[in-house]
Amino acid sequence: MNNKITLNAITQAHERIRPYIHRTPIFTNQTINDLAGASIFFKCENFQKIGAFKARGGLNAILQVAANKEGKAITTHSSGNHAQAVAFAAAIVGMPAYIVMPRNAPQVKKDAVKGYGAEIIECEPTLAARENGVLEVIERTGAVLVHPFDNDRVIAGQATAAIELLEDAGYNGSFNTILAPVGGGGMLSGTALIVHYLSPKTRVIGCEPEGAADAVLSFKSGNIEKAPFLKTVADGLLTSLSERTLAIIRDHVSDILTVADDEIIAAMRLVWERMKIIIEPSSAVAVAVVLKYRHLFAGQKIGIIITGGNVDMGKLPF
Amino acid sequence: MNNKITLNAITQAHERIRPYIHRTPIFTNQTINDLAGASIFFKCENFQKIGAFKARGGLNAILQVAANKEGKAITTHSSGNHAQAVAFAAAIVGMPAYIVMPRNAPQVKKDAVKGYGAEIIECEPTLAARENGVLEVIERTGAVLVHPFDNDRVIAGQATAAIELLEDAGYNGSFNTILAPVGGGGMLSGTALIVHYLSPKTRVIGCEPEGAADAVLSFKSGNIEKAPFLKTVADGLLTSLSERTLAIIRDHVSDILTVADDEIIAAMRLVWERMKIIIEPSSAVAVAVVLKYRHLFAGQKIGIIITGGNVDMGKLPF
Repeated sequence: MNNKITLNAITQAHERIRPYIHRTPIFTNQTINDLAGASIFFKCENFQKIGAFKARGGLNAILQVAANKEGKAITTHSSGNHAQAVAFAAAIVGMPAYIVMPRNAPQVKKDAVKGYGAEIIECEPTLAARENGVLEVIERTGAVLVHPFDNDRVIAGQATAAIELLEDAGYNGSFNTILAPVGGGGMLSGTALIVHYLSPKTRVIGCEPEGAADAVLSFKSGNIEKAPFLKTVADGLLTSLSERTLAIIRDHVSDILTVADDEIIAAMRLVWERMKIIIEPSSAVAVAVVLKYRHLFAGQKIGIIITGGNVDMGKLPF
Repeated sequence: MNNKITLNAITQAHERIRPYIHRTPIFTNQTINDLAGASIFFKCENFQKIGAFKARGGLNAILQVAANKEGKAITTHSSGNHAQAVAFAAAIVGMPAYIVMPRNAPQVKKDAVKGYGAEIIECEPTLAARENGVLEVIERTGAVLVHPFDNDRVIAGQATAAIELLEDAGYNGSFNTILAPVGGGGMLSGTALIVHYLSPKTRVIGCEPEGAADAVLSFKSGNIEKAPFLKTVADGLLTSLSERTLAIIRDHVSDILTVADDEIIAAMRLVWERMKIIIEPSSAVAVAVVLKYRHLFAGQKIGIIITGGNVDMGKLPF
């Protein structure tokens, strides 16, 4: 049982970040409901600031770092949405941000980070090089690390998306199941915690690509496991759980289900074609789960966190 | 001056179709505002039933055909969104629909029409063959033709999107300019009429691809002109004006501006990447106009009708 990320911590996070985020809309789609045999409410964090839910966690952490004067700058390592989230939030509080990014990160992502005024420190594309890069930044600048998911404040921030989903589309208990993708587990653990607090009868299920299936193994064994292989179109989900996120997920998540890349791509295309919204492959993982495991969800009221919409249009999988 | 499509006819159309359509949302985007130097409100008819505004005009016409018992069936010729709109509306009133479609129309569009229970009559891909096909259907079945744009009821239906734009985002006069793409002119003439009635100080501007630039010539000469060449990614706008739509457009549209295909594709990609919504190339034409003719719109409050989001994901232009 995790005691630190209380209901109060999450509702305070929501109050704290509210002035800077969008209250994203909730979409429904008759065709997808028919295909799934369920009633699905999509919480559209693809319309969030920076195009992904990560703005929430980054803001919740960095607003507190700034308010408490915990450091002179912010740092993190990320090649994806968290890099933009930290750059965005640091700009809001007027603190310098140093983002350690692998040399081979897409130029469009580097440009987005620079666009918020953050400084990029390039490193070799290995986890060790990224962590070393961050240590050097901390030593040199006195920056505070805001980890993408192994951080209570970040998890509390990510949990706020599900507060809005419950408030806007389902009073306590009306959702049978809420699904979220799992990479490092920041979104999934935050969602599971807040649903446990506010809607305890609602199940939370994690959704993972077969090509990064560490969380399902860790969930079953109770230890941090390695994925059997790492190769998936859902590039936002390649990370492994931390002890912190695993503990919360073991306590409050009902199951983790996996889908193959062709199922992820088909679900992504279905959402693009029928809902007319851009979702990234990582978000399509949860949609693919609802369609693949149709028998588990038939007749239910389902919530899906659409985590983001940052897609390289030059490299579409269809 | 057109006397038949009165304010009353359009507001009655809105009441008539309201139970069957979505009141589509209005989106804004800071990045695109910054690029345009204007404040833009996007009326998102890509989220409309059948994925395009054409549901409005089709419904307004067919609900009246059914209520007045004007015929035993509905027919039209179209390879695009109007085919789906007629099939959709005919299904609502329980009338048979016969859609004459060119043999080479994409299978996905044929499937969508069949999905609503309509019958497809295939013909050669020429205007003459399409019109002949419709005449044969009428003779054989007693069907009523619902033309895609040369029809007062259809125009009144299309005009209802702009009513919602004005009601939801701009009291009388607050919009400086409203832009809509122009193909046959159903949406543009309807928009121009209702804006003339409800917000007469607001200018309406038509937006046309260079590769189907008949409307701009007809607008200037007063006669139906041919496009200098027909080749554009905005395949929904290949049609020419009719005398009916030209007359309304000459009376109530301020100007028609053209953009090249590379500008249309860039605008489409910009909207996909930054707004995270799927818009079809025809809709991107209006976005491209605002960006290309920036000097004409700087500092203004702008409305853009995003006409649809039906895109073949297998044939993207980027």
